[in-house]
Amino acid sequence: MTGHHRTPVTVVGLGSMGSALAEAFIDAGHRTTVWNRTASKAVPLLSKGAVHARTTAEAVAASPLVIACLTTYESTIEALEPATAALKGRALVSLNSGSPAGARRLGDWALGHGARYLGGAVKNVPSAVGAEDTLLYYGGDRSVFDEFAGTLRVLGGDTVYLGADADLAALYEMAVGGTLLPALVGFFQGAAALQARGLEVASMVRFSTKWFEMINSVLPVFADEIDRGDYSEPASSVRLFLAGAAHDEELGREANLDTEWHRPFHDLLKRAVEAGYGDQSISALTEVLRKPAPTP
Amino acid sequence: MTGHHRTPVTVVGLGSMGSALAEAFIDAGHRTTVWNRTASKAVPLLSKGAVHARTTAEAVAASPLVIACLTTYESTIEALEPATAALKGRALVSLNSGSPAGARRLGDWALGHGARYLGGAVKNVPSAVGAEDTLLYYGGDRSVFDEFAGTLRVLGGDTVYLGADADLAALYEMAVGGTLLPALVGFFQGAAALQARGLEVASMVRFSTKWFEMINSVLPVFADEIDRGDYSEPASSVRLFLAGAAHDEELGREANLDTEWHRPFHDLLKRAVEAGYGDQSISALTEVLRKPAPTP
Ligand SMILES: NC(=O)c1ccc[n+]([C@@H]2O[C@H](COP(=O)([O-])OP(=O)(O)OC[C@H]3O[C@@H](n4cnc5c(N)ncnc54)[C@H](OP(=O)(O)O)[C@@H]3O)[C@@H](O)[C@H]2O)c1
Ligand SMILES: NC(=O)c1ccc[n+]([C@@H]2O[C@H](COP(=O)([O-])OP(=O)(O)OC[C@H]3O[C@@H](n4cnc5c(N)ncnc54)[C@H](OP(=O)(O)O)[C@@H]3O)[C@@H](O)[C@H]2O)c1
Repeated sequence: MTGHHRTPVTVVGLGSMGSALAEAFIDAGHRTTVWNRTASKAVPLLSKGAVHARTTAEAVAASPLVIACLTTYESTIEALEPATAALKGRALVSLNSGSPAGARRLGDWALGHGARYLGGAVKNVPSAVGAEDTLLYYGGDRSVFDEFAGTLRVLGGDTVYLGADADLAALYEMAVGGTLLPALVGFFQGAAALQARGLEVASMVRFSTKWFEMINSVLPVFADEIDRGDYSEPASSVRLFLAGAAHDEELGREANLDTEWHRPFHDLLKRAVEAGYGDQSISALTEVLRKPAPTP
Repeated sequence: MTGHHRTPVTVVGLGSMGSALAEAFIDAGHRTTVWNRTASKAVPLLSKGAVHARTTAEAVAASPLVIACLTTYESTIEALEPATAALKGRALVSLNSGSPAGARRLGDWALGHGARYLGGAVKNVPSAVGAEDTLLYYGGDRSVFDEFAGTLRVLGGDTVYLGADADLAALYEMAVGGTLLPALVGFFQGAAALQARGLEVASMVRFSTKWFEMINSVLPVFADEIDRGDYSEPASSVRLFLAGAAHDEELGREANLDTEWHRPFHDLLKRAVEAGYGDQSISALTEVLRKPAPTP
């Protein structure tokens, strides 16, 4: 496992996620150089065979492929600032969360210092790193993805190249991730409603799981409606959802819950009806979510 | 397929769902009597072998098991009002959507006319009726469920008895279903964000599906935290979600979207922090969704 035939890799940032990434590379037999601002976090990895870099310049110089997983794009630039000379000719791959604009800034910054850049995201938790099913997606320099695809796949079997724009992973993260908090709040509200009746929340899990599977099964239909801009053959109409909105207040009364957070959803439904989408598919809400015109 | 050994069944209400229910019974060889306010909707079923009832009294008299699938509990009472004499000794099963209070009213009304009552719900679309995996759940008179379980299973292989309260199916419907609109709006927002960049919404579906699967995988953990009332070992803290809230405005700017509907979620997160849950699990939002005390 000395990794003679494997690409040497550097991991900068050894938080929960960075440490998991470094460990996956070590386990796969890559010579793995690590750096972290708080050096003590490197210790468990060093005992597994990682090489310690004392500066980011040393870290970047050590490998053709440099993975950065710090809190933000901004902290990544800050940490790599002393390493700009070493960046020339390196492939920099970021795997933190953040805004598309932040990814573009880091990409431009890296390019400005002669590095090739790929902006990625891990669509999972640290403990899932390395698993066959774990999704990571990337946008940016295709040559980096092609050259290091095998190495990147060490981090997760479901490794995807989205396109040439440096911010695509951040964009998809935002687009895909936007369902999490609303979906969870919906679940927590249901949990509170059951508890108000002395029922175990655990008794709901199986049904909720099936419900999310149902939601999954209709996403391709909605995506197709939105892509075609044709909402005229609704499986579920805007008006049907608006009729259901009455149940939300009922829920508040039944279980003594705060259902105020539903109000903007009802407003969206009403605006969709006003815009003439009442008898069209609920996916027509996409049109109402768009602001009328970009403000300059 | 004359159904000599199968329970005769009556289906009252032949909308999209009621027609699917009746068809499933016919296909399974049950003598199926049908009634609908607008009689023409019975025609396709009659040609498949259904028996037509001209009044609800006739319909109820025809079978020991009567399934009602009208728009609401209120419309069910209205339609069955002329059939009260025939209800005595019958098992009435409702499969419409509605509030727990509505289910209790229908249950009491049925009981008052000497019927046994089971309040059910179909957790799926009409086209899924009869499938092995299709979920229907019921609350109310256990003897009805036990006596007709085999017949009810014709409507879906995943048939569940929730408990003795007539409103349990309506309650679980509300508790489980509350994730749908918020989750979809999150998805539509992501769709609009991709479109603002000229990307196909279809390209997001695979990632969103995986994301909902991830959400499903954490529900048992959240349910357990809520049931124990112990939020002290967070996989994801309230503060982590609050940090992510900044991305929502970013999304609005990037894609020119209306992200106003996020505000109540941010407010919930802030209230959770104020209540001391900042470093605890996001499932602690359940506590904040509860109103302080019931108003008399
Ligand atoms: N954990 C997850 O479940 C998960 C999942 C998907 C994506 N992500 C994303 O991955 C990224 C890292 O997450 P994490 O969970 O590993 O976070 P974390 O455990 O909080 O670690 C943050 C890392 O960033 C470093 N850092 C922050 N600011 C710095 C600066 N100015 N200069 C140098 N180093 C700095 C920290 O160094 P110190 O140790 O010195 O503080 C630490 O190594 C985040 O963008 C997160 O959103 C995380
Ligand atoms: N469709 C679904 O995907 C689905 C899924 C799960 C649950 N459900 C629930 O199932 C129930 C029925 O849904 P559906 O889709 O079948 O609705 P639908 O197609 O609109 O049919 C409504 C039915 O109710 C009847 N009705 C309404 N008011 C009446 C009254 N006052 N007197 C007599 N009959 C009356 C209608 O009779 P007319 O034909 O004379 O108008 C029709 O048979 C609803 O509660 C719905 O929420 C539906």
